[in-house]
Amino acid sequence: MTNTIPTPTYLDEFSPPQRILLGPGPSSVHPRVLQAMTLPLLGHLDPQFFRVMDDVCEMLRQVYRTENFMTVPLSSTGTGAMEAACVNLLEPGDAIIICRNGFFGDRLADIAQRCGAQTIILDFEWGQPVALPALADALERHANVKAVGVVHGETSTGILTPLPEIVNLAHRHNALIVVDAVTSLGGHDLRMDEWDLDVCYSGTQKCLGAPPGLAPISFGPRAMQVINRRATPVQSFYFNLKDLESYWNQTRAYHHTTPISMTYALRESLRMLLEEGIENRIRRHARVAAALRAGLEAMGIGLLAAAGYRLNPLTTALIPEGIEDAVVRQRLLADYNIEIGGGLGQVRGRAWRIGLMGESAKETNVFALLSALEQILPTLGYEVASGASLSAAQRALVDYADGGVLP
Amino acid sequence: MTNTIPTPTYLDEFSPPQRILLGPGPSSVHPRVLQAMTLPLLGHLDPQFFRVMDDVCEMLRQVYRTENFMTVPLSSTGTGAMEAACVNLLEPGDAIIICRNGFFGDRLADIAQRCGAQTIILDFEWGQPVALPALADALERHANVKAVGVVHGETSTGILTPLPEIVNLAHRHNALIVVDAVTSLGGHDLRMDEWDLDVCYSGTQKCLGAPPGLAPISFGPRAMQVINRRATPVQSFYFNLKDLESYWNQTRAYHHTTPISMTYALRESLRMLLEEGIENRIRRHARVAAALRAGLEAMGIGLLAAAGYRLNPLTTALIPEGIEDAVVRQRLLADYNIEIGGGLGQVRGRAWRIGLMGESAKETNVFALLSALEQILPTLGYEVASGASLSAAQRALVDYADGGVLP
Repeated sequence: MTNTIPTPTYLDEFSPPQRILLGPGPSSVHPRVLQAMTLPLLGHLDPQFFRVMDDVCEMLRQVYRTENFMTVPLSSTGTGAMEAACVNLLEPGDAIIICRNGFFGDRLADIAQRCGAQTIILDFEWGQPVALPALADALERHANVKAVGVVHGETSTGILTPLPEIVNLAHRHNALIVVDAVTSLGGHDLRMDEWDLDVCYSGTQKCLGAPPGLAPISFGPRAMQVINRRATPVQSFYFNLKDLESYWNQTRAYHHTTPISMTYALRESLRMLLEEGIENRIRRHARVAAALRAGLEAMGIGLLAAAGYRLNPLTTALIPEGIEDAVVRQRLLADYNIEIGGGLGQVRGRAWRIGLMGESAKETNVFALLSALEQILPTLGYEVASGASLSAAQRALVDYADGGVLP
Repeated sequence: MTNTIPTPTYLDEFSPPQRILLGPGPSSVHPRVLQAMTLPLLGHLDPQFFRVMDDVCEMLRQVYRTENFMTVPLSSTGTGAMEAACVNLLEPGDAIIICRNGFFGDRLADIAQRCGAQTIILDFEWGQPVALPALADALERHANVKAVGVVHGETSTGILTPLPEIVNLAHRHNALIVVDAVTSLGGHDLRMDEWDLDVCYSGTQKCLGAPPGLAPISFGPRAMQVINRRATPVQSFYFNLKDLESYWNQTRAYHHTTPISMTYALRESLRMLLEEGIENRIRRHARVAAALRAGLEAMGIGLLAAAGYRLNPLTTALIPEGIEDAVVRQRLLADYNIEIGGGLGQVRGRAWRIGLMGESAKETNVFALLSALEQILPTLGYEVASGASLSAAQRALVDYADGGVLP
């Protein structure tokens, strides 16, 4: 036995496997977007970089379908944007209603509480959308609710909550509406201005097709007014909107050093989105999701999310009885280079989260995953008729093209 | 006159000029580091990515010269790390002394105040280091000071404040020491463990040689104990250290989606740093800074920072009387593709901030800048003897190599 010290791995060049990323995000990123990050760096106060900033804001406005001036990428991930929404709107003692139908609604409530807000939590079953009557009732019972927080696409349950009626209800009670669109922006219809949303945030690593690291957010006029009239300082300096506004849209005053290369990547991913067309991208997400669901159901695998409210970019599949969650995910990763996500919170171990987002939202990925599952599951004692899920997925694609399945 | 609508620029491919980045950061980035961002994305819970995380933490520990377990890159810029340091250590009503000798000390005080801390600000002249007697006096006058905050390298003034005596003083009064090393880590001697620092944070875009977007931070055992014994929740969810600890160093529990591509870039930049050697990199920063200073002084341009306390990665040059700040910087950018920074806060318009950091810390960049200034300044009425600054810079390099100028 020799006594050599093993060479530490950090000295090696890193050569990651080429995964098919079908988890809850990050999703796969197109080479054009990766390549954009190799462009020479500019300073964050370089006039040439201001052009990049203006381009990104303008394209984000198109994706959000808004004319909101303050539509910018924050220098954080989506969770940071959730915090930015709360710390800027809420002052200690303000009341906020959080509609909690999954893990991210829970997180939103947690963050609101850390702002010192009186946080009224409305619970809805995981796998169901937010129900209007409960919200209406809560708004009747609590006077002076400043805001209502709702998760448009719940990445933990695969539920899409329709927004327009919720927004109208909140506004009738003079409450602002804060929308988590981390998983829905670019993958579902979302209309900031037409639906009259007040704050809406997202992430770059899902349907927008960029790597994780920035968080687009948009603030409407009502929200800006509330922020402009605050009596107390925002508890976060990093996420303080008034300072960010000076940098992004007005005097270009230094606030913090923008992640330059990530901003290049976001610019390129938004260009690709506009080249494809927003409607086309939304339809692409709907089409491949329909195929995945059909394939899973043909395999006898149930879906957690209630029919009619299923999120297209993320499907939650109920793990068949007797099948061990981690074993399947490890086999997918090790043998097929496919990543899917495990369940979060109360559905941990009970559901898989399968993302088809951005560059990952492709028919070929659906077939790859279904084929892999058809091969793995029987070895674990769960019988699957060979090819059945693939045929069902193919039929769903044809039906979708024929107009048989709506987005 | 035709009535055509101009094509919006966001549709164009973006092709930034190749700037020589000699501002306060971002600094130029080596192609190897840029290239690392084009590697295929991995999920943030992929075992292969855990290896990247471990590599980055281990290399950061080497750069910080620490064995602190909790030495990680935060998903923000340096300003976010400043906030993370404060929100995790401070609870409402806690007392903190902030040594303010520049813009970033001021920012640290601002953030501490937003945490509800009793913030005792000690002011020192901009361009001077923090003086021990004033701090000793403040620690005598105020009982139960929880922490002392000090900026190691003040990017606004170009001052390096020596740390060991300040740390000992704070510890003798049972106060923690929080150190801003955004501009000094990798560019000056910094010894987390030997100097017994409690919290020390930095940014990736300066002496470490990566793009902006991540913020390395290290927490020592005393700081961890304080955090573990908190009575109140941390006001930020995004920067909550206990949750980040679970993800980075323990159970790999999901907290937020790590900026994957940026982490690849940081890994590669740290590999390059270790290949060069920490001592060598520090010496490189000292050498080129000595040349720049000699060149500026030969041109008759004064330095803001007090002799003996000059930061090597960033030099603050006093703008000659009659010369307009913006004109020179615009000419440098437009005609020479060289970026230098303007003054911040009370030295706005009075000083230039010239960064020689990371990949930008090269002799060739010193000569390029001095040559450009020799050409620009005379056209604005400030006479400069042609070549004088270059000769002085060359002599300084020789002197440095001969041991005549200490780092």
